Amino acid sequence: MKATQSSLFVFLFVLLVLAACRTAPVSVPKSGMMVRLSEIEIYPDSLAAYNAILKEEAAASVRLEPGVISIFPMDQQKDSTQIRILEIYASKEAYQSHLKSPHFQKYKTTTLSMVKSLQLIDMNAIDPEVMTEIFRKLKK
Amino acid sequence: MKATQSSLFVFLFVLLVLAACRTAPVSVPKSGMMVRLSEIEIYPDSLAAYNAILKEEAAASVRLEPGVISIFPMDQQKDSTQIRILEIYASKEAYQSHLKSPHFQKYKTTTLSMVKSLQLIDMNAIDPEVMTEIFRKLKK
Repeated sequence: MKATQSSLFVFLFVLLVLAACRTAPVSVPKSGMMVRLSEIEIYPDSLAAYNAILKEEAAASVRLEPGVISIFPMDQQKDSTQIRILEIYASKEAYQSHLKSPHFQKYKTTTLSMVKSLQLIDMNAIDPEVMTEIFRKLKK
Repeated sequence: MKATQSSLFVFLFVLLVLAACRTAPVSVPKSGMMVRLSEIEIYPDSLAAYNAILKEEAAASVRLEPGVISIFPMDQQKDSTQIRILEIYASKEAYQSHLKSPHFQKYKTTTLSMVKSLQLIDMNAIDPEVMTEIFRKLKK
């Protein structure tokens, strides 16, 4: 009887440990998410200054705003004045809140004269599941 | 003595379980990473078939290939024949290996006639750190 109790204890304890360290589900919203690809051309003379401000803004947004899933800035290898930013917000509300944030306001006002052209292209994720899969994989 | 052995066994077993389910650090390479934005236009009549094949290919790549960090397909809300794919590979080797994978080969051969135009635009991450930050945040 003692051995059975002991085995039961071990079994329950291991179950508890497994439950505690089970990876929490990744909370990528399947609907209501906002996906945008911004296409921005910067005046060559302003590029270094622009990139420094953009880096700071992207890092602050991701770090400080729970509703900012991604602000991922890139430039084209063939023409570094061509900037693309993959922006993913958890909801329209998260995006509206982002627009009011001090770091976005600072970015917007200080870079206004550096931007030659700007196109905000709203996108759909063709398979939101694949994003969840990307995040799940990266958690391993 | 028996009780001590049993406790030791439980302790070691729990340690083993904990070690097995501990989340490994996110391994986003800071250099050597390949970032690409593919711009693809699909013939309208082929769009549904194309999207189904693309979904399958993206999911398989992310699930099966350790070097595929992201294959994230999107379409434009204003024109769903305009597809954009954010592709991130851990290295050039990971990309070469991806090209040889059966799921990519299947995608490539079955969609060839559906593609009206294709541009593979190589990009740089302006701040690779921000990607690490995005992944770190999503792990919480």
